[in-house]
Amino acid sequence: MNVFAVEGLPEIEPGDDIAALVEDRVELGTDDVVCVASTIVSKAEGRQADLADFPAGDRARAIADTIGDIAGEQKDPRFAQAVLEESEELLLEAPFMLAVTRFGHITVNAGIDRSNVPDSDLLLLPEDPTASAQRLHDALDAPVIVTDTSGRPFRYGQRGVALGWAGMPAARDWRGRLDRDGREMGVTVQAVVDELAATANLVTGEGAGGTPVAVISDWEFGDFDGSDDLFREHEDDIIRAALKEWSYAGD
Amino acid sequence: MNVFAVEGLPEIEPGDDIAALVEDRVELGTDDVVCVASTIVSKAEGRQADLADFPAGDRARAIADTIGDIAGEQKDPRFAQAVLEESEELLLEAPFMLAVTRFGHITVNAGIDRSNVPDSDLLLLPEDPTASAQRLHDALDAPVIVTDTSGRPFRYGQRGVALGWAGMPAARDWRGRLDRDGREMGVTVQAVVDELAATANLVTGEGAGGTPVAVISDWEFGDFDGSDDLFREHEDDIIRAALKEWSYAGD
Repeated sequence: MNVFAVEGLPEIEPGDDIAALVEDRVELGTDDVVCVASTIVSKAEGRQADLADFPAGDRARAIADTIGDIAGEQKDPRFAQAVLEESEELLLEAPFMLAVTRFGHITVNAGIDRSNVPDSDLLLLPEDPTASAQRLHDALDAPVIVTDTSGRPFRYGQRGVALGWAGMPAARDWRGRLDRDGREMGVTVQAVVDELAATANLVTGEGAGGTPVAVISDWEFGDFDGSDDLFREHEDDIIRAALKEWSYAGD
Repeated sequence: MNVFAVEGLPEIEPGDDIAALVEDRVELGTDDVVCVASTIVSKAEGRQADLADFPAGDRARAIADTIGDIAGEQKDPRFAQAVLEESEELLLEAPFMLAVTRFGHITVNAGIDRSNVPDSDLLLLPEDPTASAQRLHDALDAPVIVTDTSGRPFRYGQRGVALGWAGMPAARDWRGRLDRDGREMGVTVQAVVDELAATANLVTGEGAGGTPVAVISDWEFGDFDGSDDLFREHEDDIIRAALKEWSYAGD
């Protein structure tokens, strides 16, 4: 398996054709997996926004006050409003806003970025990353994953994750397969799009602002059943249920 | 970046010298990252066990009964006892046992494997994966990550994660760095050992029982501060706190 960043991409602006920019710089095979950072997808799709676009309602004001009290510094209620508008629901309001985006991804602040955004305050995630991946896949004729970096429970730090994908399944489904001793396998679903997104992040990284696209070649999905379930449904997610019933009571 | 599985490793047995077996099969550079599946580390370290080794106490019996009632089938209380003995604490007892292992990793059933274990019932995780990684690193003179596959909240499927590491830091620490526009970076800590473990899992995978070691070459940690914090401390983990206060009340 080979992984490299696509060099020399320009700063992406609204309306830019990412697929064409990638094709100008690299010869893709139809089995190469193209991982595209959601930041540039958002920029091309015009998802820049300003805080002034989000006049704060009562709930946003209350959330900003609560988080501000915990942090000991004032928070901008317009940012809380932006997170609310980008979310299907919040699992936590405080000490940080843990949001379920409209496409099912669970992340702090609905993934809204306040860095790396020239000329505007905010960069929202793509509205429908799988649709974005599909458009890129149609143009590039190779599997495409739209990636983000995101924190996670239990472990410090962020790692690359998939937000949307096209041209390949999200996961290898081993259910029902037996191990070499004839027992059922311990691992039943391998979320390969997340593993590929993590791989891509090793060569792109947040700091490498000019290399938001990575190509993974000589890797095969293989002869497995595929599954496109990646975001857990409410009823299957014990931890989501626990968070919904819990509220922060201070240190 | 280049990733390949080490081919031709034999079935690992207690006392086997994994480092020597790897060195016989591949020429390693001092910057190559060697990812070793915890299953073979456990096997070499003699972490096979039988259910009969874990006579169930009262708590294990109660947990097995509760989980069995929810699942509608009887559960072996000796397995619950094994999980308890491998854990520092449980975050959930039911509908599944979500355990904090003695080295800080949070995973279902304390990572005890019931498949891929010839001649015994169970395979426990290595007792101290970072010590295991250190021994392998000393022998191989290259960075080593002891990996596992593990599920996670919010997302279906399993992905590779790091349990222990040596010869490199766990994470790139970007704190305080500024983006190209002079704003503070959105991502502050990049958990590269987890990303490398996920990468390795793409070429080894659970089904590929004969290829539990992957080598990642032509990748650099780079000129960043390093951090070895990977497992969150209690006080920093809101989701851990929420789970501790919650209990499963049925469907």
